[in-house]
Amino acid sequence: MTSRPLWFDDLQALMPTAVVTQEAVIAPHLEESRGRFQGACGAFVQPQTVDQVQRLMRFCADRQIPIVPQGGNTGHVGGAVGRADGVLLSLSKLNKIRAVDPIGGTMTVDAGCILQTVQQEADRHDLLFPLSLASEGSCQIGGTLATNAGGVHVVKYGTMRDLVLGLEVVLADGRIVDGLSALAKDNTGYDLKHLFMGSEGTLGVITGAVLKLSQKPTARETALFSCESMDHMLSVFHLFRRHFGDGIEAFEMMPRFGIDLALRHTEGARDPLDHEHAWYGLVDVVAYGPTSDLTDRLMGALTVAIEQGWVKDGVCAQNLTQAQAWWALREGMSAAQKKEGGSVKHDIALPIAQVPAFMTAAAALVLSLCPTARLCTFGHVGDGNIHYNITQPVDMDRAAFMALGAEITPALYDLVASYGGTFSAEHGVGRIKRTELAAYRGGQAYSVMQQIKAQLDPQGIMNPEVLF
Amino acid sequence: MTSRPLWFDDLQALMPTAVVTQEAVIAPHLEESRGRFQGACGAFVQPQTVDQVQRLMRFCADRQIPIVPQGGNTGHVGGAVGRADGVLLSLSKLNKIRAVDPIGGTMTVDAGCILQTVQQEADRHDLLFPLSLASEGSCQIGGTLATNAGGVHVVKYGTMRDLVLGLEVVLADGRIVDGLSALAKDNTGYDLKHLFMGSEGTLGVITGAVLKLSQKPTARETALFSCESMDHMLSVFHLFRRHFGDGIEAFEMMPRFGIDLALRHTEGARDPLDHEHAWYGLVDVVAYGPTSDLTDRLMGALTVAIEQGWVKDGVCAQNLTQAQAWWALREGMSAAQKKEGGSVKHDIALPIAQVPAFMTAAAALVLSLCPTARLCTFGHVGDGNIHYNITQPVDMDRAAFMALGAEITPALYDLVASYGGTFSAEHGVGRIKRTELAAYRGGQAYSVMQQIKAQLDPQGIMNPEVLF
Repeated sequence: MTSRPLWFDDLQALMPTAVVTQEAVIAPHLEESRGRFQGACGAFVQPQTVDQVQRLMRFCADRQIPIVPQGGNTGHVGGAVGRADGVLLSLSKLNKIRAVDPIGGTMTVDAGCILQTVQQEADRHDLLFPLSLASEGSCQIGGTLATNAGGVHVVKYGTMRDLVLGLEVVLADGRIVDGLSALAKDNTGYDLKHLFMGSEGTLGVITGAVLKLSQKPTARETALFSCESMDHMLSVFHLFRRHFGDGIEAFEMMPRFGIDLALRHTEGARDPLDHEHAWYGLVDVVAYGPTSDLTDRLMGALTVAIEQGWVKDGVCAQNLTQAQAWWALREGMSAAQKKEGGSVKHDIALPIAQVPAFMTAAAALVLSLCPTARLCTFGHVGDGNIHYNITQPVDMDRAAFMALGAEITPALYDLVASYGGTFSAEHGVGRIKRTELAAYRGGQAYSVMQQIKAQLDPQGIMNPEVLF
Repeated sequence: MTSRPLWFDDLQALMPTAVVTQEAVIAPHLEESRGRFQGACGAFVQPQTVDQVQRLMRFCADRQIPIVPQGGNTGHVGGAVGRADGVLLSLSKLNKIRAVDPIGGTMTVDAGCILQTVQQEADRHDLLFPLSLASEGSCQIGGTLATNAGGVHVVKYGTMRDLVLGLEVVLADGRIVDGLSALAKDNTGYDLKHLFMGSEGTLGVITGAVLKLSQKPTARETALFSCESMDHMLSVFHLFRRHFGDGIEAFEMMPRFGIDLALRHTEGARDPLDHEHAWYGLVDVVAYGPTSDLTDRLMGALTVAIEQGWVKDGVCAQNLTQAQAWWALREGMSAAQKKEGGSVKHDIALPIAQVPAFMTAAAALVLSLCPTARLCTFGHVGDGNIHYNITQPVDMDRAAFMALGAEITPALYDLVASYGGTFSAEHGVGRIKRTELAAYRGGQAYSVMQQIKAQLDPQGIMNPEVLF
């Protein structure tokens, strides 16, 4: 912040309360959580009203100043990294819950609301906002919208775009698209909200949203089980589909190596089953209403899976503490992996039926390039979404492994594409996957995306270098 | 077809098998189902391949020839009315089911597939394609995509856009956007499919889609009940939400006058309850798995509703025949209304919590303008979507009533807007609601829509006069 841009004083004069200059406040907004990007900023702006955002956008449009919108700064792909020649626009102070409609099951919020705050507010009305992420304590609604966040409940409730009825957006030229509709059905021309959701701040700034709240289940049961193969894991998933339909709230998988890491690096972690197995599944099922036979139904499904030979061992949680301990294993996987050395990570998704064949082919590919690689491939298998993470071999130093990783990644993405999959399931493109976006996004889609970008942000000031 | 456009012979030479000239084949494609629009066409084209569609689009783009895409021609808003100076592009012959993935739960189809064919194919794999409309025997997937169709199952499964994973579109200039992805999660830039869904053929021609299939419920129970007020109807809806969560598959309402019409004009129809009541609710609930206590749970919920005083009388269907008879009353409402004289119809939606207050205000408004109007207001109350239909008074002739209707409609739409509702819930805008689109679509959304239209269809040849 030592050399400020020429326009800084004008901006400060325009909105003195929104322009923040304390370096201690600004510093945490410049570094991305994984430490991969160190940003800068010509000005750090924290508007408290939509009107301020609009005035900021007009100011920047007049002077062609780049704007990088930032939510909770919890992303992994360099999507909210500030620039020395631009404004870093933090939505943190635009953080009010505007309205709750418990009868209609909607909540209207500012973009800067923390996800957990929204979850708690819904709970207060005996309703559920189901989006659930590792970063829910700090990520913001605006960020989850701009990146179409996913997480562990997608198998039942969908991704963030499925949880939204209306959106308020300030465009690059300062126009406000006020689409804060709370309607379940509204066929009146183009659905603009879906264009902004997932656009990673490159088309405008999301300032508010009407969120859909779900009924809160009255029963939730958790099971942990083991499978010898991914084929069996998929068979269990489909058995659960038949038994519970859309009552499956989460269906996650972990490899034995992931369990080993969690046991090694997580305080108080315990091996969940008596013996070691190749793969572990973790499933939550839910039910509604005053009475429930959910425990019996879960036992019943697990019994069938064992009889079929798909499950080697499986347990239903005796209580919430046990369920939480299993979930802590799953949620602790990334942190545990970090303590084990360097990681080469891939956030991929496949058509669900392709997951077993892909996993076999991918392991062969990775091990052919790095024979001692340790595969920590876990994730949301019910959505076909695998965090295909590779952990540094014990016999290789970090730098050598990371260099090798740079060779593995493109080969893996080619393999993913050959199975009809995607190189970005839920984390987005940001700065780090722009090459892949241009390479893999099918047919003419990329050029249409460029046309839309050029039309809505003709000066290219919205989050430059992200996506394109 | 007597005077053909100058370009006709060139087009016929280009695709002789696709250009159809028999008037008997063409005639049914020119009139809209309600008889409100009589179209024409310079050429009637029925491509059998996506390649033919692409060649047609290039041909038309070169010569600035208007193109009107048409599916099953079951719409109500003039969205697929051919023009004498253009091509009427029927997707009827592009009607193959390309692939079914029963494990992944997806079906890839041509746009011209009939909805019912898709439902039946899903059923063959013990899966469900849940979109359900009165016109499902003749409407086509492409049309349901282009209009984001709704129907009776939206309360559980969402509208058509929620049932799609990937989309194949031929743009106005012949470029093909091949987005036939079968992924539950794919965050790679702008979500283009949602832009085309609901765009009513104004941005391109949808030629194929990857549809999401759902698990087929193993139990389905139906109840019919009566309420004295819409407040009570809403209380019942929320009671059912608490008891069944997303196990409510349909939640419909009918007024006594609608029941009267159905009884009068439907062969074999019987009054469902012993006494007459102001409002009737019709609900389907579903469950999954090998065992089910759904009947008991439905009885339980209904009992609570009666104890609370929200329901005056209610019955669970004893068998499928009884359930179907009740559904026939609901589905027969439009046809019965037609036999009673002229109708002024409105396809509106409101935030659900606003429905009771709106219904009171709307009745007062309509009766102030037409004191003997008969209100046949029924529909998908679980989505806040009311078919606000007004039937010709017995003491007024059709022409006078329809003239009065032209005064009632704008006043009603203003009222709808004042309650945060929409003038088009599921039928779309087409030609008949263009004025309303310009008037009510909030803030800058309309101008952004125009920008996108201008960018993707710069010559304005895609379905001119629809939306704009």
